Amino acid sequence: MAKQVKTIGVLTSGGDAPGMNAAIRAVVRTAISKGMKVKGIMRGYAGLLQEEIVDMSSTDVSNIIFRGGTILYTARCMEFVTPEGQQQGAEICRKHGIDGIVVIGGDGSFRGAGKLASLGVNTIGVPGTIDLDIACTDYTIGFDTAVNTAMEAIDKVRDTSTSHERCSIIEVMGRNAGYIALWCGIANGAEDILLPERYDGNEQALIDRIIENRKRGKKHNIIINAEGIGHSTSMARRIEAATGIETRATILGHMQRGGTPTCKDRVYASIMGARAAELLCEGKSNRLVAYKHGEFVDFDIQEALQMKKDISEEQFEIAKMLAR
Amino acid sequence: MAKQVKTIGVLTSGGDAPGMNAAIRAVVRTAISKGMKVKGIMRGYAGLLQEEIVDMSSTDVSNIIFRGGTILYTARCMEFVTPEGQQQGAEICRKHGIDGIVVIGGDGSFRGAGKLASLGVNTIGVPGTIDLDIACTDYTIGFDTAVNTAMEAIDKVRDTSTSHERCSIIEVMGRNAGYIALWCGIANGAEDILLPERYDGNEQALIDRIIENRKRGKKHNIIINAEGIGHSTSMARRIEAATGIETRATILGHMQRGGTPTCKDRVYASIMGARAAELLCEGKSNRLVAYKHGEFVDFDIQEALQMKKDISEEQFEIAKMLAR
Amino acid sequence: MAKQVKTIGVLTSGGDAPGMNAAIRAVVRTAISKGMKVKGIMRGYAGLLQEEIVDMSSTDVSNIIFRGGTILYTARCMEFVTPEGQQQGAEICRKHGIDGIVVIGGDGSFRGAGKLASLGVNTIGVPGTIDLDIACTDYTIGFDTAVNTAMEAIDKVRDTSTSHERCSIIEVMGRNAGYIALWCGIANGAEDILLPERYDGNEQALIDRIIENRKRGKKHNIIINAEGIGHSTSMARRIEAATGIETRATILGHMQRGGTPTCKDRVYASIMGARAAELLCEGKSNRLVAYKHGEFVDFDIQEALQMKKDISEEQFEIAKMLAR
Amino acid sequence: MAKQVKTIGVLTSGGDAPGMNAAIRAVVRTAISKGMKVKGIMRGYAGLLQEEIVDMSSTDVSNIIFRGGTILYTARCMEFVTPEGQQQGAEICRKHGIDGIVVIGGDGSFRGAGKLASLGVNTIGVPGTIDLDIACTDYTIGFDTAVNTAMEAIDKVRDTSTSHERCSIIEVMGRNAGYIALWCGIANGAEDILLPERYDGNEQALIDRIIENRKRGKKHNIIINAEGIGHSTSMARRIEAATGIETRATILGHMQRGGTPTCKDRVYASIMGARAAELLCEGKSNRLVAYKHGEFVDFDIQEALQMKKDISEEQFEIAKMLAR
Repeated sequence: MAKQVKTIGVLTSGGDAPGMNAAIRAVVRTAISKGMKVKGIMRGYAGLLQEEIVDMSSTDVSNIIFRGGTILYTARCMEFVTPEGQQQGAEICRKHGIDGIVVIGGDGSFRGAGKLASLGVNTIGVPGTIDLDIACTDYTIGFDTAVNTAMEAIDKVRDTSTSHERCSIIEVMGRNAGYIALWCGIANGAEDILLPERYDGNEQALIDRIIENRKRGKKHNIIINAEGIGHSTSMARRIEAATGIETRATILGHMQRGGTPTCKDRVYASIMGARAAELLCEGKSNRLVAYKHGEFVDFDIQEALQMKKDISEEQFEIAKMLAR
Repeated sequence: MAKQVKTIGVLTSGGDAPGMNAAIRAVVRTAISKGMKVKGIMRGYAGLLQEEIVDMSSTDVSNIIFRGGTILYTARCMEFVTPEGQQQGAEICRKHGIDGIVVIGGDGSFRGAGKLASLGVNTIGVPGTIDLDIACTDYTIGFDTAVNTAMEAIDKVRDTSTSHERCSIIEVMGRNAGYIALWCGIANGAEDILLPERYDGNEQALIDRIIENRKRGKKHNIIINAEGIGHSTSMARRIEAATGIETRATILGHMQRGGTPTCKDRVYASIMGARAAELLCEGKSNRLVAYKHGEFVDFDIQEALQMKKDISEEQFEIAKMLAR
Repeated sequence: MAKQVKTIGVLTSGGDAPGMNAAIRAVVRTAISKGMKVKGIMRGYAGLLQEEIVDMSSTDVSNIIFRGGTILYTARCMEFVTPEGQQQGAEICRKHGIDGIVVIGGDGSFRGAGKLASLGVNTIGVPGTIDLDIACTDYTIGFDTAVNTAMEAIDKVRDTSTSHERCSIIEVMGRNAGYIALWCGIANGAEDILLPERYDGNEQALIDRIIENRKRGKKHNIIINAEGIGHSTSMARRIEAATGIETRATILGHMQRGGTPTCKDRVYASIMGARAAELLCEGKSNRLVAYKHGEFVDFDIQEALQMKKDISEEQFEIAKMLAR
Repeated sequence: MAKQVKTIGVLTSGGDAPGMNAAIRAVVRTAISKGMKVKGIMRGYAGLLQEEIVDMSSTDVSNIIFRGGTILYTARCMEFVTPEGQQQGAEICRKHGIDGIVVIGGDGSFRGAGKLASLGVNTIGVPGTIDLDIACTDYTIGFDTAVNTAMEAIDKVRDTSTSHERCSIIEVMGRNAGYIALWCGIANGAEDILLPERYDGNEQALIDRIIENRKRGKKHNIIINAEGIGHSTSMARRIEAATGIETRATILGHMQRGGTPTCKDRVYASIMGARAAELLCEGKSNRLVAYKHGEFVDFDIQEALQMKKDISEEQFEIAKMLAR
């Protein structure tokens, strides 16, 4: 029989992502509207272990839906990877009367969430990462904002790249996943896109394409490189040496993690946060909220963590065709 | 047996939408990469009837992916609603060697597209409208940009609304559909959302909620009103008279149709445009490209036009709950 | 001999403007760094009379420099226009130990400020209004942000205006002053600019220019109309009737008052706020901080209120010439 | 007696800057309205020597006022530094009937402009550089846009920096000048600003301030570093090692050179471009258009090149005071 959850905690864990505040707001207000109490756990699992736990009311989450970052802060926590740390976390939950918890973060955070669930704390995960690298879901909180931030920055680089008839390599975030790179590649009409999932390291082929593009009259070359490949600065030097074309690297960096969330990130994060609180209210545990095939659904955490996904081959082919 | 299409035309019809240029670019470059020729038809069906038809090369669509509006212009055309006009359109296509056509627009444009198909011109529709009011698809070109433009404007109104502790009614576009209003309502944390699909005209209930919100300590009231309801200015006057709270109306207007497209609009419009050209290349006709259940698919035009859709009841409930 | 000011108050009055928070932050931190105490007065003069007065520390103004609106709120106050109201205000200052006050607002607010000064409360004004209509200064807090917000919105309207080959009338704020209209007119390359300081009401001449522009091949007409002239909607109807060209009006409205301040507004508001606190520290009173001839200076309030200024004839001529 | 100029050329030289297109448009349309002909010289002095010269009409500069970069392209040109190159440039001008020329660029470009003037080609310079490092003028085309682009990016970095309680070093452009760094330092409320004009290389003092800030409760440290100091990445490593606080560097790079110009950049660039064409029309030569003490003026090129300027000590002091 489903456990009656009376007080829930909410934390953000791993890298921050725009929209996390919208999710926090939705968790808090949904829980309260369903008669539950809410406690905010600061700094992810680290704050849990240090008992940085505060009561949250409806007004505590006023005026945060449009703010980047996370009002609950986030941090890495090596201690929580150990069974002792997890056991301690579960005990602290009980000590504070927290019988359900919403964990907003990525795959690493969900492994911890699964452990908490197995230790008797009802736990629901919400996918929050700009990298889109969570297999069970087509949407993660922050990707839409990050990809728009990157795209707008690349639009600006393109202006100056055209004026100087340069080659520009722009490195976007995404850790080992190429989603941001692929989307920007299409959206910015990039001449080349280097994805961790596809790039074979054949720099000579890249150089040949640059030379060929110039022959065909292109005034600039925009190359989107993914964080998972990296080395944009040295790549730029080698390309300039090989082609004689002025080549510059820009590493967009942490600005991609911040900024006011896009409409999609605010709306979807709100729905997911509300859903997480509802699942706890229904007595569910060990579930991951996801968006799949156009619907908001939820999966068993362990099953979700074993799923695989890959970038869209079709989109990659379209990107290459349209760049010509 | 599928007809071999050698030359295709492309036109934009109905209200313009950000991302249409990305779709045009994708149609042109995909068609060329598949060995077809492309002609641009200016001003929608009106330009077709006036034979405003130009050859399009790959470079003609350079540097347009990031531009709002449509480089092919758009216009209404009463003449094309008649059988005579449609017959004439099909003949002009034949005269110019156009044996396939891509129509980027909304429901009204697709009715014309279906007629062209029945008259022997292979025709593919691509959903382009900021209103999201095409039943067969979860995505239409321009909605994502429009909803972000509206949201950012409402964020700004909110600043001043808070400073003056005002009530603000902001009217967003969407014709008879409330999608933009609903998304902004959630994303801007609006105190109230008036949707054509739900609003019963009970202004007293709205006024009561405003008064109740003030009692509960809210410093401002943001009310999102949909174009399909309208009358924001007079509504503001009545609310101010009834509540004694300073109330202002803002009608966001045509700015919502313009601006550089968001990443999603550029990417999805590119995929849809490519898909349309591929369908023509495969000899298909009378199909509508759509995005449904997380996938790009295509439907028979007549079947698509008979589908119905409604705003999400779940999202509307969440919006109301989170505003509290 | 200059009075030693120990505790200062700060308030915002009149219409809010982006950058007011930057000014408040600078007043607070400068005053504290000079050994003074600071009290925030809520809702302008209205809050003063109602003794809505709070202590302000350095951390109270953390994370506000980038926020639109004013954290001190603002309101109109009829009572403070009377000698009795002013007398009462001065007494409340004394009661709360406030021996100096910074008033951030427009001309109306400065008249009140001058009265407070004459009643023995050392008073410094800081020009805060998006309208730029304060004669003694070339810069007012908020103008730069407002004019960029308007310009970006008009860029968007232009996209759709071009696609539909429409005539668009866009009404911008500025009360009786045409500065926002003139700047947008130049920056958006508008075909026509209607300024309260210049417009003679000759709508036929406007219509003639629209017709002439079409003959010369212009695909759209952008007309910037100033709030001080108004009536954009009916004007659009008359133009459409007279020219046969589809004409639409957009009234940008209150979004122009909000949004995160531009860099110039943050920097200049910070400098002006710091200067105001320094002037109080030096024992000055009845002064208005201004930016004139490229320098930050200060004027006697009464002298400043008697100055006149007009829009730049040269800029207006350039605007007309470049639109051709 | 002033030479009657009939045909003018216009070129952009050195690094591109947002607003250059607005200046080009103003030069072209002003010259035409005064009865002169205009030729566009591509790729700066390099294009002049290679005779990449095209006729320009009023419509050639339609729809460019809002575009970043320069439609005339820009390039460095070693050859034009030599007397032979300059002599050849003057001869090519005569060959093409160009008896006046507008050079939009920075100090390096103006040295070449002065030489052309001495060789009998009437020459006017317009200050175009994001670095603001031209001594005779308080405004250069592009600075306002660049500083807003940088500020917005830093706002985003700040979000994530706060969430992770990190120290962030953000490197902004400006070559050897610290104007962009100083303005962003104030506008972003940075805890520290490193300016080439002031920084003494005392990294230990910087580290001490970071540690002190943490003790005083600051959740993050934003340090703005200028391109002229550089080495942000290694600086971040050393700071992290010395403080134990996670520290990340972001080098904003070329995105600061692009993007649609701000309102001020569009308006001032338009006025300066118009002024340059007018000066040529009046027979003037060897002058630099400038904005000084709140007015548009012009200087002798050689005198202007010998002027010195420095960042504002007052602004730097305010920045440091407000960061506390």
